[in-house]
Amino acid sequence: MAAKTAISPTRAEDYPEWYQQVIKGADLAENSPVRGCMVIKPWGYALWENMQRALDRMFKETGHQNAYFPLFIPMSFLEKEAEHVEGFAKECAVVTHHRLEPDGKGGLRPAGPLEEPLIVRPTSETIIGASYAKWVQSYRDLPILINQWANVVRWEMRTRLFLRTAEFLWQEGHTVHATAEEAMEETRRMLDVYADFAENYMAMPVIKGEKTAGERFPGAVNTYSIEAMMQDGKALQAGTSHFLGQNFSKAQEIKFQDQNGEVAFAWTTSWGVSTRLVGALIMSHSDDDGFVLPPRLAPTHAVIMPIYRDDAQRGEVLAYCQSLRKELMAQTFGDEKVRVDIDDRDLRGGEKKWYHVKRGVPLRIEVGPKDLAANGAFVARRDTNQSQGMSRNELVSNIASMLADIQKCLFDRALKMRTERTVEIQTEKEFRKYFAGGEETGKLTSGGFAKCWFSSEAEVQPLLDELKVTIRCIPLDGPKASGKCFLTGKDTNTQAVFAKSY
Amino acid sequence: MAAKTAISPTRAEDYPEWYQQVIKGADLAENSPVRGCMVIKPWGYALWENMQRALDRMFKETGHQNAYFPLFIPMSFLEKEAEHVEGFAKECAVVTHHRLEPDGKGGLRPAGPLEEPLIVRPTSETIIGASYAKWVQSYRDLPILINQWANVVRWEMRTRLFLRTAEFLWQEGHTVHATAEEAMEETRRMLDVYADFAENYMAMPVIKGEKTAGERFPGAVNTYSIEAMMQDGKALQAGTSHFLGQNFSKAQEIKFQDQNGEVAFAWTTSWGVSTRLVGALIMSHSDDDGFVLPPRLAPTHAVIMPIYRDDAQRGEVLAYCQSLRKELMAQTFGDEKVRVDIDDRDLRGGEKKWYHVKRGVPLRIEVGPKDLAANGAFVARRDTNQSQGMSRNELVSNIASMLADIQKCLFDRALKMRTERTVEIQTEKEFRKYFAGGEETGKLTSGGFAKCWFSSEAEVQPLLDELKVTIRCIPLDGPKASGKCFLTGKDTNTQAVFAKSY
Repeated sequence: MAAKTAISPTRAEDYPEWYQQVIKGADLAENSPVRGCMVIKPWGYALWENMQRALDRMFKETGHQNAYFPLFIPMSFLEKEAEHVEGFAKECAVVTHHRLEPDGKGGLRPAGPLEEPLIVRPTSETIIGASYAKWVQSYRDLPILINQWANVVRWEMRTRLFLRTAEFLWQEGHTVHATAEEAMEETRRMLDVYADFAENYMAMPVIKGEKTAGERFPGAVNTYSIEAMMQDGKALQAGTSHFLGQNFSKAQEIKFQDQNGEVAFAWTTSWGVSTRLVGALIMSHSDDDGFVLPPRLAPTHAVIMPIYRDDAQRGEVLAYCQSLRKELMAQTFGDEKVRVDIDDRDLRGGEKKWYHVKRGVPLRIEVGPKDLAANGAFVARRDTNQSQGMSRNELVSNIASMLADIQKCLFDRALKMRTERTVEIQTEKEFRKYFAGGEETGKLTSGGFAKCWFSSEAEVQPLLDELKVTIRCIPLDGPKASGKCFLTGKDTNTQAVFAKSY
Repeated sequence: MAAKTAISPTRAEDYPEWYQQVIKGADLAENSPVRGCMVIKPWGYALWENMQRALDRMFKETGHQNAYFPLFIPMSFLEKEAEHVEGFAKECAVVTHHRLEPDGKGGLRPAGPLEEPLIVRPTSETIIGASYAKWVQSYRDLPILINQWANVVRWEMRTRLFLRTAEFLWQEGHTVHATAEEAMEETRRMLDVYADFAENYMAMPVIKGEKTAGERFPGAVNTYSIEAMMQDGKALQAGTSHFLGQNFSKAQEIKFQDQNGEVAFAWTTSWGVSTRLVGALIMSHSDDDGFVLPPRLAPTHAVIMPIYRDDAQRGEVLAYCQSLRKELMAQTFGDEKVRVDIDDRDLRGGEKKWYHVKRGVPLRIEVGPKDLAANGAFVARRDTNQSQGMSRNELVSNIASMLADIQKCLFDRALKMRTERTVEIQTEKEFRKYFAGGEETGKLTSGGFAKCWFSSEAEVQPLLDELKVTIRCIPLDGPKASGKCFLTGKDTNTQAVFAKSY
């Protein structure tokens, strides 16, 4: 009989339901009474705050400033860029009235119709572009390097906590440049920032690549993404960076006088990551006992659990825990102080342990009267489940390196899984076999990432639709050689990563 | 002839227009194409980020956690608390559709009508309460101490940057307690936090007090506020903390089983401050040359301006500035490192100086070849306009104390003004005379704060409406004695602060 797990079902039994149960067990978020919108609970929000802090620092180090633009976009603004409105029209929350009045039946009804409906921003290219058109006059005003932390709304029909919600939190960078080269450099720089964040903070290996035409952001010339593999072998797009060319600057008249006195349209970019990253994090590292947090993003690095029988013991043990906590918090991990909590709630030991296991706290430290006597503690790692007694000195001087080791082990484990589940596929038959695994069964699929040469997106699309597979990206570090299309056998110099995806 | 000022008009000439021009001169924000919504520009947003960081730390130190709740509130939720909906129904942005479709005339129109309209949150008591009703079962689940940083929308007809905008950014704390005493303690604790922040970060003296019934938050049992005096003598409500009693818990069924097994309604509070604080900050300290930033909130504490004639000088001067910057940034002011920028843009010296004057940077440091030779710098204070040559050592070792002195001077100056413009008034005649100053003329009014005994809000209301005066609050540290109502002569034990207000 299998060992009992803290999360039921397990990944192997029912992966999608396991995901929901990990979120529930870790108390990260829940569905709200508003269709498709989620409530991000304190533990989930603290994680998001840590993500924000790290990303925000990286944005500032690459020369960006934060600003804030309106939540609402006049409908006419959205219409300006044809592909853009086409991409978002089907999922817009529309504000049509500006007050409520009694409906005569004891309830209320909307009143005060607006002259022009307002769209709750699904993304802010058009509203931010309207400001940029005013701000940019001369080459001296360029570049503009601005980021915004905001909520956005896309009316999704099928939602899933963190992965796809009607409202989500994100950051969106919007930049303006004098030349195409500079704008492209910015687009790629921010893709690198995202990859750096994903790999070094989230411990999640990613493939940097370019999207095919069919998968581009509506209105973009080039879209780049970072793609990660989840534990069911599916891909998750974890961040995108768009080279918008002059599409938006022409639609919105973002023009400037260059050094020769000539008026030219500017070149723009946009790039974003969202609370979807929390979903990616959950599916990268969590196990059948619940959430596993990479230490660099963990709201709490270590939790101390005092163990005692009576009030006399309690006083001694707690005092020891408090001074231990202070010593541990004086240590530095990465560029921040170690974060330690004491959990002295009146719960049974087993219940308390599993509470923190399910929440993914990297280190659990138990301190009882015996540890006190030995001037030590009992330490357990969340990632490997290894536990051992340690002397207090050893614990204090090693806590940072233990956290670093957990961070590294999580990355290595995820990379190993991705490597094992990435194949090169040459024929349609192999392709069909590889992706035959049933998403519908709710089990882990047999698929993963397939690297395939292909000659035309249009030609492969019917097969992809049939198998529910997508082209994730054309990796930036892909082979420079050429090959034969897995479907048509035609010569081609494009190899892409194909996968089922979130 | 008066000296030329960087901001025109001056405060004395046209206070409201001066306010707009200070914002423009400091590049803090601007009106957006969306009616009533503002664009917060990088310098204004950096200030807001500093406010957020300080407040967030204070909230966490008082045991609160952050979370995030939906932007949208189902219309039926808002209807549950009668006074609450009454208070907000007239200014609600209402979402009625969830997509756009071609209108047959080349444009778009709203489509996909929602079954139930959604309100863009004007405040979140009702949507957060719906979660709390699920989360609270037992006294063991209490207290709940949660804060949210969010955008909210109140459809205001007359808007003004930062002071009153249709969309604004804020934080809203929402807590649940087992007893009235605990909830009241929380309400007052957060009022104290706000007062602490206003006085010690914003350098803005405030009066803590209770609102009269007519000025309460819709649905609250008691509303407390901090009130600050602007330089035109008007009051600005800078933060509020509400004891909601059981009004919302009864409307939303937030119930719990107490220690005796009995089911009881919980006691709730809410409290908030918003980007309005930026407006308060501007009007507290700015002068006729523009914005004046209190150092504890300044995005930049000091700006170094290199001065040179040619490239040879430039290299030397810049190297000196960079090493000086490094030394200055190693100093600690308050609990943060000193923030120093170098402005090496190719601008005339005067233009550059006034740029930073108008943005309110506390210290300007000029470094030219002579300063280099003398191993010194020329330092100017924004608040007093005093400037002096200093040795490099002196500057480095004194920068933190200079910043502390600026912080103190700004507070003292604001307190002095408030003291000078606060009077006690005993009669209607005096009251009329004191508040006769013309808001309509756009000049500084002759009014200020008037402390008056009064016996009934209803009795004084007509006079207040006539003079456009409001009761700001009943100060918590007001006299315990009694007096005679300034209007009716009746005995009363209530003294309040009366003022014109924003």
